[in-house]
Amino acid sequence: MEKLNATTARLTAESQIQIGRWTQYAINEQLPFNAMWCVIPPGGSSLRDCHDEVELAVVVDGAADFETPDDAPATGRTEAAQGTAMLLSSNEAHVVHNRSATEPLVLLSVYWLPRTAGTEPRP
Amino acid sequence: MEKLNATTARLTAESQIQIGRWTQYAINEQLPFNAMWCVIPPGGSSLRDCHDEVELAVVVDGAADFETPDDAPATGRTEAAQGTAMLLSSNEAHVVHNRSATEPLVLLSVYWLPRTAGTEPRP
Repeated sequence: MEKLNATTARLTAESQIQIGRWTQYAINEQLPFNAMWCVIPPGGSSLRDCHDEVELAVVVDGAADFETPDDAPATGRTEAAQGTAMLLSSNEAHVVHNRSATEPLVLLSVYWLPRTAGTEPRP
Repeated sequence: MEKLNATTARLTAESQIQIGRWTQYAINEQLPFNAMWCVIPPGGSSLRDCHDEVELAVVVDGAADFETPDDAPATGRTEAAQGTAMLLSSNEAHVVHNRSATEPLVLLSVYWLPRTAGTEPRP
């Protein structure tokens, strides 16, 4: 059993947030996905992000607003309380806001390239 | 974007806990793993579980103790505060205890069959 959390992970500052990529763990090779901790400071926001990978962002500490700014018409922000998982589609732009002015927001972000048409289904 | 959480999921009682399998979600087919919500009542524990799949159990609400009872010598229980992810190896027996007498414990459990020797590495 391996115990993993953002508190003990090696974090690096990237843009306006702290990132802890799971490549730092020996167990990373066992995973069928990539993963990282994201720590967003009180009152802070991530930069707009958009990527080929599908992303499952799990709110493990704090409270978030997820914004998908390319939505037309704009749907505004979706609140994600602690314990909520947000699934973002491939190439769905997103910004994450920390709803708290006093506490950091911690996300576990899991992401993977989607299967393309014609490839084998997963077992 | 899809918003998923244990509060709005369909849960079913299994043994002493509540389970919300992600097969209930249309997005389940997009995932490179299986997943479920596990809700353990105040003061409660899961039954001993042991399976071929590797499991990443994320404490998304509450506080847990993880027990791996087949360890020799017994290592006792490992505390997992909210925001902790526990990686359990294939066929590593485990019991999860809710540390709180008043609040439910919510886990997001993600699990997958390990790659076997001789298969293609993941991309």
